[in-house]
Amino acid sequence: MKSARAISVFHGPNLNALGSREPDIYGTTTLDQINAALQALADDMGCEVRFAQHSSEGALVDAIHAAAQGGRAIILNAGAYTHYSYALRDALAAVTVPKIEVHLTNIYARESFRRRSVIAPVVHGSISGFGVNSYLLALRAAVSMLDAIRD
Amino acid sequence: MKSARAISVFHGPNLNALGSREPDIYGTTTLDQINAALQALADDMGCEVRFAQHSSEGALVDAIHAAAQGGRAIILNAGAYTHYSYALRDALAAVTVPKIEVHLTNIYARESFRRRSVIAPVVHGSISGFGVNSYLLALRAAVSMLDAIRD
Amino acid sequence: MKSARAISVFHGPNLNALGSREPDIYGTTTLDQINAALQALADDMGCEVRFAQHSSEGALVDAIHAAAQGGRAIILNAGAYTHYSYALRDALAAVTVPKIEVHLTNIYARESFRRRSVIAPVVHGSISGFGVNSYLLALRAAVSMLDAIRD
Amino acid sequence: MKSARAISVFHGPNLNALGSREPDIYGTTTLDQINAALQALADDMGCEVRFAQHSSEGALVDAIHAAAQGGRAIILNAGAYTHYSYALRDALAAVTVPKIEVHLTNIYARESFRRRSVIAPVVHGSISGFGVNSYLLALRAAVSMLDAIRD
Amino acid sequence: MKSARAISVFHGPNLNALGSREPDIYGTTTLDQINAALQALADDMGCEVRFAQHSSEGALVDAIHAAAQGGRAIILNAGAYTHYSYALRDALAAVTVPKIEVHLTNIYARESFRRRSVIAPVVHGSISGFGVNSYLLALRAAVSMLDAIRD
Amino acid sequence: MKSARAISVFHGPNLNALGSREPDIYGTTTLDQINAALQALADDMGCEVRFAQHSSEGALVDAIHAAAQGGRAIILNAGAYTHYSYALRDALAAVTVPKIEVHLTNIYARESFRRRSVIAPVVHGSISGFGVNSYLLALRAAVSMLDAIRD
Amino acid sequence: MKSARAISVFHGPNLNALGSREPDIYGTTTLDQINAALQALADDMGCEVRFAQHSSEGALVDAIHAAAQGGRAIILNAGAYTHYSYALRDALAAVTVPKIEVHLTNIYARESFRRRSVIAPVVHGSISGFGVNSYLLALRAAVSMLDAIRD
Amino acid sequence: MKSARAISVFHGPNLNALGSREPDIYGTTTLDQINAALQALADDMGCEVRFAQHSSEGALVDAIHAAAQGGRAIILNAGAYTHYSYALRDALAAVTVPKIEVHLTNIYARESFRRRSVIAPVVHGSISGFGVNSYLLALRAAVSMLDAIRD
Amino acid sequence: MKSARAISVFHGPNLNALGSREPDIYGTTTLDQINAALQALADDMGCEVRFAQHSSEGALVDAIHAAAQGGRAIILNAGAYTHYSYALRDALAAVTVPKIEVHLTNIYARESFRRRSVIAPVVHGSISGFGVNSYLLALRAAVSMLDAIRD
Amino acid sequence: MKSARAISVFHGPNLNALGSREPDIYGTTTLDQINAALQALADDMGCEVRFAQHSSEGALVDAIHAAAQGGRAIILNAGAYTHYSYALRDALAAVTVPKIEVHLTNIYARESFRRRSVIAPVVHGSISGFGVNSYLLALRAAVSMLDAIRD
Amino acid sequence: MKSARAISVFHGPNLNALGSREPDIYGTTTLDQINAALQALADDMGCEVRFAQHSSEGALVDAIHAAAQGGRAIILNAGAYTHYSYALRDALAAVTVPKIEVHLTNIYARESFRRRSVIAPVVHGSISGFGVNSYLLALRAAVSMLDAIRD
Amino acid sequence: MKSARAISVFHGPNLNALGSREPDIYGTTTLDQINAALQALADDMGCEVRFAQHSSEGALVDAIHAAAQGGRAIILNAGAYTHYSYALRDALAAVTVPKIEVHLTNIYARESFRRRSVIAPVVHGSISGFGVNSYLLALRAAVSMLDAIRD
Repeated sequence: MKSARAISVFHGPNLNALGSREPDIYGTTTLDQINAALQALADDMGCEVRFAQHSSEGALVDAIHAAAQGGRAIILNAGAYTHYSYALRDALAAVTVPKIEVHLTNIYARESFRRRSVIAPVVHGSISGFGVNSYLLALRAAVSMLDAIRD
Repeated sequence: MKSARAISVFHGPNLNALGSREPDIYGTTTLDQINAALQALADDMGCEVRFAQHSSEGALVDAIHAAAQGGRAIILNAGAYTHYSYALRDALAAVTVPKIEVHLTNIYARESFRRRSVIAPVVHGSISGFGVNSYLLALRAAVSMLDAIRD
Repeated sequence: MKSARAISVFHGPNLNALGSREPDIYGTTTLDQINAALQALADDMGCEVRFAQHSSEGALVDAIHAAAQGGRAIILNAGAYTHYSYALRDALAAVTVPKIEVHLTNIYARESFRRRSVIAPVVHGSISGFGVNSYLLALRAAVSMLDAIRD
Repeated sequence: MKSARAISVFHGPNLNALGSREPDIYGTTTLDQINAALQALADDMGCEVRFAQHSSEGALVDAIHAAAQGGRAIILNAGAYTHYSYALRDALAAVTVPKIEVHLTNIYARESFRRRSVIAPVVHGSISGFGVNSYLLALRAAVSMLDAIRD
Repeated sequence: MKSARAISVFHGPNLNALGSREPDIYGTTTLDQINAALQALADDMGCEVRFAQHSSEGALVDAIHAAAQGGRAIILNAGAYTHYSYALRDALAAVTVPKIEVHLTNIYARESFRRRSVIAPVVHGSISGFGVNSYLLALRAAVSMLDAIRD
Repeated sequence: MKSARAISVFHGPNLNALGSREPDIYGTTTLDQINAALQALADDMGCEVRFAQHSSEGALVDAIHAAAQGGRAIILNAGAYTHYSYALRDALAAVTVPKIEVHLTNIYARESFRRRSVIAPVVHGSISGFGVNSYLLALRAAVSMLDAIRD
Repeated sequence: MKSARAISVFHGPNLNALGSREPDIYGTTTLDQINAALQALADDMGCEVRFAQHSSEGALVDAIHAAAQGGRAIILNAGAYTHYSYALRDALAAVTVPKIEVHLTNIYARESFRRRSVIAPVVHGSISGFGVNSYLLALRAAVSMLDAIRD
Repeated sequence: MKSARAISVFHGPNLNALGSREPDIYGTTTLDQINAALQALADDMGCEVRFAQHSSEGALVDAIHAAAQGGRAIILNAGAYTHYSYALRDALAAVTVPKIEVHLTNIYARESFRRRSVIAPVVHGSISGFGVNSYLLALRAAVSMLDAIRD
Repeated sequence: MKSARAISVFHGPNLNALGSREPDIYGTTTLDQINAALQALADDMGCEVRFAQHSSEGALVDAIHAAAQGGRAIILNAGAYTHYSYALRDALAAVTVPKIEVHLTNIYARESFRRRSVIAPVVHGSISGFGVNSYLLALRAAVSMLDAIRD
Repeated sequence: MKSARAISVFHGPNLNALGSREPDIYGTTTLDQINAALQALADDMGCEVRFAQHSSEGALVDAIHAAAQGGRAIILNAGAYTHYSYALRDALAAVTVPKIEVHLTNIYARESFRRRSVIAPVVHGSISGFGVNSYLLALRAAVSMLDAIRD
Repeated sequence: MKSARAISVFHGPNLNALGSREPDIYGTTTLDQINAALQALADDMGCEVRFAQHSSEGALVDAIHAAAQGGRAIILNAGAYTHYSYALRDALAAVTVPKIEVHLTNIYARESFRRRSVIAPVVHGSISGFGVNSYLLALRAAVSMLDAIRD
Repeated sequence: MKSARAISVFHGPNLNALGSREPDIYGTTTLDQINAALQALADDMGCEVRFAQHSSEGALVDAIHAAAQGGRAIILNAGAYTHYSYALRDALAAVTVPKIEVHLTNIYARESFRRRSVIAPVVHGSISGFGVNSYLLALRAAVSMLDAIRD
């Protein structure tokens, strides 16, 4: 059933500022460009993808529940919430769809507070450090996991 | 003055998913069933009770201020915010009405990050580990405290 | 079978001094008055309750084993042993009867060494901060648990 | 260009309760009175100032982005978010306008969790402990920084 | 009223072995010799003194309550309990008579676990490192404190 | 002199519950069965062995002093006291007879608080993880040490 | 120049035991099967790949230097060395070819000592938690990086 | 009484080297220029100000006592002593005149050892990160506090 | 089947220097003498034993895999690797034959870095502090475990 | 030889402010009154005593060397230097005369930074918590130690 | 006896890559050039010197034992093993010849993990931060120590 | 220009007591003898050297500034200040002349508080553990660095 290949990509706080935000760290690619690249690859692979950016922790929690209820896989770049939001962690732990953590940068090579991810223990896998490619690799991984479930 | 026996019960993030969320930990009782049990006991004891679930930290902060301005006692299951939300702590510290922390599970028997409650120091009392009964015992305690104030 | 509703309440070190001990923290109620209030509620609920105060860690360990062998639920205010007695923890972990931790004060709002309970991870639930009412709520919870077992 | 002397003052969670909230710590001045004092000094110095209070972390993050896009300097009392919101930290790090942290009280003389500011490393300067005057001094500092940029 | 000059000296676990126990650390003086030296000085100063050695933590707790009820000052060498017995700490905190901690050796120059005294914060003063003289100086200090109370 | 081959085996708190206590961790062998196995091996090796179980820390301290005064080697399973009883540590440090620490389970593979033994630094050797065999190996080791002393 | 698309895949200690080693954690796929899957994908993408397994820390260090001197990208599953081998870290830091860390399991969801990677800060990216797919995604990422260099 | 508007400004160790010392961190303004700017503002506000630089911790302690005995407000840039001098902390705690901590740089954005101020808990307020303006804002704050006392 | 009573004894780095290495700590017995004592006891008990000393971490890892594949029990004195080699830990965790950790000295009574064994959590038991006898007791324990498996 | 009964009493930083400094903590007794009480007791006991107050760490170091070269016992109230001055510690460790640490208050019952004395490990004994009496008891102890040396 | 002036210089992992490895940190000098400079100075001073580079921890351990058995002084740059190899530490502790630790860079001014040397406590001296000169100074120091032994 | 080869050697607190101070640790060489050895080597190398001992932290700070203003290299044995004086650290960081830290003993092999040097990160190099030779090697290093600057 092809339509089950559905994926939600969630961007956390400050990611809407990509392109102008600390470009020496995060590059000049904008969030729209990331979404476009994801859409292109999704089209190529024959899967459906949706995007949302939320600055609010509570909004991300609610969005995770809604996506999972629709049977959608979840790709999440939680931004700074990665490092302390146990509410996001609980939301991810509460759902059983494929869930993947992504980061543009290698968070383990940065400030010490960024080297700890409280959501990493409850996702299926993590990809960090490849810029936009982190998202594209995650999309491939999510599709593989969805296909494995369907089989 | 009977009408002063008014209590607000606040449920934090992910509690709306009760029943389907990690049922081996949280059981299969839904939030609606918890609220119904509370309503029944409240009717029995002749007090008024209201319910709200908020995923957003800020919304919980605002709700605590509003409840206290109405002279209502507060029963709060802050979910994961229990462990790091100093904003909730400040909100609770700012109000003087009876305020009680509840948890369905015994948080001190779980993962290490759950064994610390940053709001415990600013509530009047804490009850954890009795499932739905945690809420019911809290309702009894809140009524006792309100009655003591009225005397 | 009514006679199975049997509960033991254990008071740890220094609780015999209640009433005169640091009354600004612990109030002026004596241990005899707490026991009388528990007896009254127990009579009301049709259950049997026994009381004991022990200053010695070893005596508390032995009392827990004896109560559990008689199938009695356990309500324990371990006093300062709460914070470091792994022997008490092992005793509680060794028994499977309903077991509830109580504290007169909100221990999480006091000195840092009191904010850690080494027995909390091995009891079924904890109630703290409601003064004498902590014990009364615990009695209600214990009866509920015993009834659930009997069903 | 005089009109560039524009400043946004953001108040975080629980600051709307100023005046009634723990008055022995925070005093009896209300948030409206603080805003009025800031407006008076702004009028005096010929600069434009706007005010907003947000209980939600995400709303503060969005407000910081919006203010910076308008070229406005930022004065922020983040309340309890000061101590753990890496999302706010990232928002502040993402903008290059003058940005100043203020606190009514001397946070370094209070509970240990308040002695750490996770946003201090990404602002230009910090002022704490002078009550309403903390805000007024921050306004002077912000104007100086804006003037230095214009030169 | 001369008879009010009454003092109890309590020796904790392992102090009964003084003389043969690790003599390179604790010397060859026995507990009986220490008590005799204290009795001689007490006779000289016209005060009454009693001695007891207890290996059990609970017994020490009970002895402190009994001594305080009789209005006696307390001199305590808690031995190893010094470093972890919060039950002893609570017992000392519960009484208001003069209470002094003594140690034969300079505990701060020994193994790291001995460098922390959990009872030091609740006694009036501490004397360590002078061998038998630690006790004799404590007796002088206790008499001064009792005399100050009587005045 | 054969009669000098005398050994005391001390069991600490909760070990009297062996057999029924957490059998998935501690097995179903009772303390009486352990003692019988030790007695059989002792008979076989021609040495005398005595057993005692004490729940009280102070009683264990006194028993160690008494055994050592009789020139008996000491085999001690201190149970939970292993992890925090500096009084036991001091008692063991005070005696010079062969002294061996045993544990049924591999304490270093269990909860973090069990991974620290405060008595390990003052015994001659430690054996853990072999169930009843831990005691039997300790008996062999104790006899070897006593024989070495006699030579 | 197509031939520059050369990649070395290094497997660290204990990975030769894959298939039989703790299969509930690592699955039943053998190292030969992983290598075969990598070879198939490499053939598909038109790149050359080589494999080696080394149990010795020093051998891995030398292999990294040799691969980099040949201009080969490096994919490394360092096994347990991930968590403490600063020698491997230095070796990776010393080379500038594309270098990617892979793990079969999500190391951040396992024992605490496995949640720290000392090599993560010096690689270009990390992929963990996808089983064999971790390697395949890494191969794609490495080829992208090599192609970017060639452009 | 105008003459009571008297303020002492103390500069700690290494501040005499301002201008040549690590100019990329501390700028090229000299200590004389800072003092001149303070004098100009003081003249403008009608208050009296005195300056002193001390490299010695003891000299700073004595200077604080002397200034306070003369009823002078204190502005202190303690330099590196900020981070470990409990003697300075005690000196500031011992005096009740207005006392303000200033720093040229934002110490919370620098090396970890600079992120802790042991004197912050005993001053009335802290200002850091505004270069020379830190001192000028402190002067305004000190005058406000003195005026409030005189009223 | 008698021939299955096969045991490998592995000595880690620096143990080849026994006899001349820090004799006040490790005694004057050489590694050959230890092996001879083990051989004698093995002959006596009718089991087969082999010995190897490896300075290289990787060689020990490989030797453990090889021994386990041959169904041999493992006695390991890992020397300093005991304290940090997660590679050895993984190797031991990967095999299911009886595996015992031995140490000549009581490592828990020595320098703090030696008080932590990273392999202790994955062996069946540990014996330390009895000199050569540590190995002999381990041999007895290994034979018991092999016999239990055969039954 | 009577003249050898010579003692130097050193007062550290801020002690010159005694009487006016935080009188609720340190009382209203001045340093001159403490010195007078010491002089009176010294006259009574037939020993010679000298006094000095130094705010400078270096001056205290030099004074300790000078006193010891004259064979004088040392009584030191190091004030805040107690908690961090390893220079004072080295000075005390360098001399072999009787050396006693005194504190007016019970430093172990105050702020956490005051609960650590870096000089305690290198003095012969410590006395704290008895106000002026701390000094007088120290004088008695010093004379006893000097007399013991002379014997 | 001139021939006794024999020294072994050991280079640890990654040092063979000197010259091309992170030249902004380690410079462009190669290991051969370092060895040549050492040889030249050795010729000048009339001593014999040998060089070896080992990437393997075990090989370095063995080389230290061999050199010491030949009475040779040891100069060791352990590279990253400096920070965690207790096996090297034990090897160095086991030998009594002059032994000196060298580093090209100032390891204490670099990343935090490099600021700890586990071998520093067991060598005679350490030299770091002078580039090639670190080795040359060490050679001088080693010769001095050898000459002192011969005298 | 030969006269530029000028070096200042600073000795910190307690070093004036060398020879009599803890001779088992520091040896019996006096400070005058160290200075004489330095003078002899300086004469030999044709450089000018000056010496000073300061017990006061502030005096050392001022001396460092003065030496650097004269273009002199600095050799500093900061004694106990090494471990906590951030004022000295700032002074050294403020100057750009060659600056070398020396210690008679190997501080990294002593008490834990001595194993941390807060000045090591801001000097050019460190030499410890060679007794007087530490100073002589430092003089050679300083001359090399001065010569390199002159070239």
